[in-house]
Amino acid sequence: MSEKTLSHLQTVSESLESGATMQIRYLLNGALPAQDVARLLESSPPKERKLLWELIDSNNEGEVLQYLTEDIGVQFMKEMDTERLVAVSEHFESDDLADLLQHLPETIVKEVLSSMTAQDRTRVEALLSYSEDSAGGLMNTDTITIRPNITVDIVFRYLRRHSSLPDMTDNLLVVSRSDRLLGTLTLTKLLVSDPENTVRDIMDTDCTVINADTPASEVAQLFEKMDLVSAPVIDGDSKKLLGRITIDDVVDVIRDEAEHSMLSMAGLDDDEDTFSPILKTTKRRAVWLGINLITAFIASYVIGLFQNTLDQVVALAILMPIVASMGGIAGSQVLTLVIRGIALNQIGSTNAKWLLNRELIVGMINGLLWASVIAALTAIWFDNVKIAYIIAGATIINLLFAATTGTLLPIFLKKIGIDPALAGSVILTTVTDVVGFLSFLGLATIFLV
Amino acid sequence: MSEKTLSHLQTVSESLESGATMQIRYLLNGALPAQDVARLLESSPPKERKLLWELIDSNNEGEVLQYLTEDIGVQFMKEMDTERLVAVSEHFESDDLADLLQHLPETIVKEVLSSMTAQDRTRVEALLSYSEDSAGGLMNTDTITIRPNITVDIVFRYLRRHSSLPDMTDNLLVVSRSDRLLGTLTLTKLLVSDPENTVRDIMDTDCTVINADTPASEVAQLFEKMDLVSAPVIDGDSKKLLGRITIDDVVDVIRDEAEHSMLSMAGLDDDEDTFSPILKTTKRRAVWLGINLITAFIASYVIGLFQNTLDQVVALAILMPIVASMGGIAGSQVLTLVIRGIALNQIGSTNAKWLLNRELIVGMINGLLWASVIAALTAIWFDNVKIAYIIAGATIINLLFAATTGTLLPIFLKKIGIDPALAGSVILTTVTDVVGFLSFLGLATIFLV
Repeated sequence: MSEKTLSHLQTVSESLESGATMQIRYLLNGALPAQDVARLLESSPPKERKLLWELIDSNNEGEVLQYLTEDIGVQFMKEMDTERLVAVSEHFESDDLADLLQHLPETIVKEVLSSMTAQDRTRVEALLSYSEDSAGGLMNTDTITIRPNITVDIVFRYLRRHSSLPDMTDNLLVVSRSDRLLGTLTLTKLLVSDPENTVRDIMDTDCTVINADTPASEVAQLFEKMDLVSAPVIDGDSKKLLGRITIDDVVDVIRDEAEHSMLSMAGLDDDEDTFSPILKTTKRRAVWLGINLITAFIASYVIGLFQNTLDQVVALAILMPIVASMGGIAGSQVLTLVIRGIALNQIGSTNAKWLLNRELIVGMINGLLWASVIAALTAIWFDNVKIAYIIAGATIINLLFAATTGTLLPIFLKKIGIDPALAGSVILTTVTDVVGFLSFLGLATIFLV
Repeated sequence: MSEKTLSHLQTVSESLESGATMQIRYLLNGALPAQDVARLLESSPPKERKLLWELIDSNNEGEVLQYLTEDIGVQFMKEMDTERLVAVSEHFESDDLADLLQHLPETIVKEVLSSMTAQDRTRVEALLSYSEDSAGGLMNTDTITIRPNITVDIVFRYLRRHSSLPDMTDNLLVVSRSDRLLGTLTLTKLLVSDPENTVRDIMDTDCTVINADTPASEVAQLFEKMDLVSAPVIDGDSKKLLGRITIDDVVDVIRDEAEHSMLSMAGLDDDEDTFSPILKTTKRRAVWLGINLITAFIASYVIGLFQNTLDQVVALAILMPIVASMGGIAGSQVLTLVIRGIALNQIGSTNAKWLLNRELIVGMINGLLWASVIAALTAIWFDNVKIAYIIAGATIINLLFAATTGTLLPIFLKKIGIDPALAGSVILTTVTDVVGFLSFLGLATIFLV
């Protein structure tokens, strides 16, 4: 599939260079499915992306937009006039539209809303009132509701009056006269039931129901745990049915969450796009480099404290990065594991103690093992047993600090409301660098000089 | 939900300590849903995990097992006798059972298979022939098939003869007399169609069909792109219907894939479990530390080349980690981004050139910016303008090398079949350390000494 996209990309970029826009127009407007056109745009550098976008017929734009990642979609929408925005917005499901509108200037949003039918406007306005990262922000309002006192046969007749049912409809929502959710009736249950039964007889009253203000990450965990395709969303206070969440939107949450940790640990934004323009990228990265520069200078300051020792034994300068680096590696392994454990909600105060204990033992065993290796190599290289002992001791100390920091730091950061994936790696490196240099040069100052 | 699990964990661990096993038995055998019991086991250290497992009634074990991660489930199954394994295996869907059996000794697998009904055995044996990481390994054999020439009304009557339909059934599979897939009929389409229509009239012949040997990652991309709930799987040669894949299994693939990069970059195994026993963990980590030790010694060797220079100007020893560290940070940002781009199939030879170009410009801008800051701070700290110029030059050189390596290395590793997430970070650090020390100490040797 995606190799196909890459080969289309090849064709397109060659055609762009040779100016053969006819062929590209043909590919973009019908020959390729809209999903593939979207992937193509996402895999193109900014200038080509813009050129390609201009080659898409305006009546195909909406179709492609709905498959683009939010970041890129919003960029294109910002450049549209209101009339085109309104035309394009008809292609969207209400939840996706609400997500995009949140990023556009308020005056434009108002114009788009006022051009919609009253019913659509009410839906989108309702969605706009919820945070994007909550169940309310994820939900769609296209539910099919039925009343509990009708028979299965009547449900069949009612459904047949629709020309089609919303995508991902796997159940019907049973509501009271005042729109309170009473239960759900899955299509599979409906299809195997006696036509004489009433909905009340066969509906599932024990179904998973989601409050509109539930965080998106909890929604994702619920879907994964209960193997859901869709779930109804209700207002927490009035208990009224508001809409439903479908698995396709949850899959996006799951991917974003899993990627979030990796990207944050490298100081990258979640919506950092592989092909963002240079200035945008440079600014984001500069901040991270600046923060790390502080770390680096702290480490240098620590080294500077031992200027006299270093002056006397140059071997120390040669060997000191080894101690810091081993601590950094060991620490980031623990950190990565604990950050994942926290994201999966597996780690709490009960098992944190056990975990720290395990990590200290692992650090001790690996410390003893690799400290011996390092000591042996050092003794041979510099023909100096004293330095060998010192570097071995410093390595063990640093691995134990790495284990402690790697385990406790993310738990602590989480507790005080700081994202452990973002801040964890910088702080950890600071600790392992400082402890590494301090222990190695400190021991050397005591025992060597 | 999961905070509930953590609070149950608290209760359980207190009860375990005080020996109040009655209460735990109650929680584990009915009071908590099987999914929560599974989460509880996963969040427990090995010893408690084993104790808890023993408190679960044998007739509840199968239910809990099917929700446990594979790694932990297999551990428990290895300790069961065949009779219990057979009893437990009845709780599993055929695809999950096949996954687990792959990890058990062959003699036991044979015994389990021979105790099953002929139909079940054939199904599981068919699944065992596919790799776990392919569509064949993901699929289930519980399809509902219909013939094209019957009417909608007859489909309804046929379905009503079932007591229930398989989970996640969103469509019926239309097959020929020889079991070839002709199309699909979604339940939503079925429900809005005229009862007089034949299946042929309303079926979708353009549906997504998956070959049994399609890699799992491609299956996941297909599900994400097409917003599927389930898709039929066919044999590539005979075109016969083999089974179907459902979104719940695909969600697992998506999560595993997204986590794979993060874990690999820290040298951790995909099935590294937060609460694995100490020895298992220590062994895995030791290998990674050993590999990184080689890197560290290479860096030290490079420093050693400049022993004389260091001997004369101790400030160099104090400052040299800054150059290496800035390169490492900048490089791992690029590396992370490119590894993600490769995993999402966004990066090929066409756009690699553009990407390298962008990263070099970003590296240059950030290099100039931070090199000036570093130079200014150095000039003030050591009151030495020459060293300031030298460290600025070295920083820029290292950031440019970091950008080049971060971009090209993962693309190259991917091309020669090595996992870029696993090998990328070690090699990158080696490059940024070596180049950092080489450029800084090299320039110092030329211009300072």
